[in-house]
Amino acid sequence: MVLRVGVIGGGQLARMMVPAAVELGLDIRVLAEGPGMSAAIAATAEGDYHDAETVLAFARDVDVVTFDHEHVPQDVLAVLRDAGVAVHPGPGPLAVAQDKITMRRRLTELGLPVPDWAAVHDAEELRAFLAEHGGRVVVKTPRGGYDGKGVRVVTDPADVEDWFIAAAEVGGEQALLAEELVPFTRELAQSVARRPSGEIVAWPLVETTQRAGVCAEVIAPAPSSAGRVADVAEAIAVRVAEELGVTGVLAVELFQTDDERILVNELAMRPHNTGHWSIDGATTSQFEQHLRAVLDLPLGATGAKAAVAVMVNVLGGPADGDLAARYPAALAAFPEAKYHFYGKSPRPGRKIGHVTVTGDDVDDVVYRARAAAAHFDD
Amino acid sequence: MVLRVGVIGGGQLARMMVPAAVELGLDIRVLAEGPGMSAAIAATAEGDYHDAETVLAFARDVDVVTFDHEHVPQDVLAVLRDAGVAVHPGPGPLAVAQDKITMRRRLTELGLPVPDWAAVHDAEELRAFLAEHGGRVVVKTPRGGYDGKGVRVVTDPADVEDWFIAAAEVGGEQALLAEELVPFTRELAQSVARRPSGEIVAWPLVETTQRAGVCAEVIAPAPSSAGRVADVAEAIAVRVAEELGVTGVLAVELFQTDDERILVNELAMRPHNTGHWSIDGATTSQFEQHLRAVLDLPLGATGAKAAVAVMVNVLGGPADGDLAARYPAALAAFPEAKYHFYGKSPRPGRKIGHVTVTGDDVDDVVYRARAAAAHFDD
Repeated sequence: MVLRVGVIGGGQLARMMVPAAVELGLDIRVLAEGPGMSAAIAATAEGDYHDAETVLAFARDVDVVTFDHEHVPQDVLAVLRDAGVAVHPGPGPLAVAQDKITMRRRLTELGLPVPDWAAVHDAEELRAFLAEHGGRVVVKTPRGGYDGKGVRVVTDPADVEDWFIAAAEVGGEQALLAEELVPFTRELAQSVARRPSGEIVAWPLVETTQRAGVCAEVIAPAPSSAGRVADVAEAIAVRVAEELGVTGVLAVELFQTDDERILVNELAMRPHNTGHWSIDGATTSQFEQHLRAVLDLPLGATGAKAAVAVMVNVLGGPADGDLAARYPAALAAFPEAKYHFYGKSPRPGRKIGHVTVTGDDVDDVVYRARAAAAHFDD
Repeated sequence: MVLRVGVIGGGQLARMMVPAAVELGLDIRVLAEGPGMSAAIAATAEGDYHDAETVLAFARDVDVVTFDHEHVPQDVLAVLRDAGVAVHPGPGPLAVAQDKITMRRRLTELGLPVPDWAAVHDAEELRAFLAEHGGRVVVKTPRGGYDGKGVRVVTDPADVEDWFIAAAEVGGEQALLAEELVPFTRELAQSVARRPSGEIVAWPLVETTQRAGVCAEVIAPAPSSAGRVADVAEAIAVRVAEELGVTGVLAVELFQTDDERILVNELAMRPHNTGHWSIDGATTSQFEQHLRAVLDLPLGATGAKAAVAVMVNVLGGPADGDLAARYPAALAAFPEAKYHFYGKSPRPGRKIGHVTVTGDDVDDVVYRARAAAAHFDD
């Protein structure tokens, strides 16, 4: 008997589950969107995850279904549930991750600290929110955004007129999410993993740096976070996982504010870019842990294996597309760096890989991780 | 451009190259002996590696060919070489690994320390060797032995009469290898990796324990080996790799004798059971390093990530064949242990997986690694 995990979506998160599955002796199968995806090596089916029949056929051959992303529609998830398929995370928590207004509403109901927010249905409501928040706020489309897409800093309702028009065309209760522009000193991320049977573990809190809305660097553990900051972050993430019933990995992106509050920014119910450091830096990586969690197996130790780990994303890559030509110089310069590539073609701004370096001194490790990753820049 | 590695043979060594290839962004393809092999997830072809046409067809789609084992016949390797295929390790060094008498002869020519040995062609020659070596010696078949198969402790030529008969039937220069029974205090193993362009790196020396001729446990680094023992072991392995022109990983199994000599026992020109600890315990695992080496990429750092790493093989597994049923108790008992399974069905004595634990205290780590692995015993 080999345990079988089915992953919907063939991106790099599914890809990075493959090494963990192979080592642990699991059978991993991926429903990819098409040929040549990042996780192609484990793709046993190709098809559209919006199609219930396609997803159900895939699900029948596995013990549990999980995800590379949060975009599988609720009606498809309902078909799986009705067919008795084990799905982790489940449709309930996924609904919260799929819609930013739902997410803000649930977190507010739970009394968790979030930025001031409002669901704004038209220019008038947004104008009122702007007036209450210093004339400069963040507006987000509730669905489909990622890596800075669907997020704008706004000073006038005209800045998001196109989004209001698009929302009106869809009809129904189509609002945008308006949020105060949080005066933050830094961004943090707290990952936890939770099993269906309840066990929950947390990794060390990390500090993240975004560039143009995309995760660029992660330092684990977050410097100067021991004590209150780490305790608060962990308590928030544990509470979110338990109250929403999240299974698998949950990543909570946080703001640390000028006045030392910790606010929830975003949630991701899957392995997350801010946890990639754990492949090389933690006893159990977020990818191994996600597989253990969705199979309801006991969770692994989450401790760091080095005083500090720094992950730097490779964004874009060489303009000539020849990634392989960059390996010799990079590998020679930093033999201790761990290079990870996702089988994706270089393209401006695209996440095609990451580099992790571990060590004792933050400044030294940051320098080496950046320099190693820079070998793959254009 | 993605670098493509072709591996001949679908066993667990090919399987454990898959995670390393996926992380490093390489395209790994396996020529498996049949369906359902350990490395099935990367199998792009199935066929007989004795058949030159099968192997050549597979080799045409990759940048370099390497191996899960050393059994590909020299005439098949010659066809690859004549077709201009990059093959690492090459036919020359592989010939030494394929025949234990050739191996002993080459090591002796190089002046490297080996047990007393002789190629014995009949009972008379073996009797003479027995008389010179205390009446009790080791006899090995030169080819095809592994994990204790093809190795016997002998006090009388009649003990290997069947092997002499089989050798006579094959005809030609068919001898057996006779070796003195080395009075060793312990067994060690030294792994190195070498690129075609010459760069060579060594991992820490390890201590190995065999049971019934099969590797059972490995402690890295070998206790009480710092200084002379480690230096001599490394010098031997480096010399073997350079003199024989080995490319990829070379594992040298060694005896440490009662009188403190270090003798070469066996050679393996591929990742080896004594190096599995490096997946969790070294900055660069033997599997990642082998891929880097055969592609002639710069080699990775080989330092240990913890004071001690202990690997214990899972041999046999549960008699009822239900490996998955053992996961919950094992994972719960040792959340810090790294469990590795090879996708092989349990069968008495069969290597189906291994467990690695790292830590600070040898006795403690040995205890935990053994106890974790024991969860999968019958």
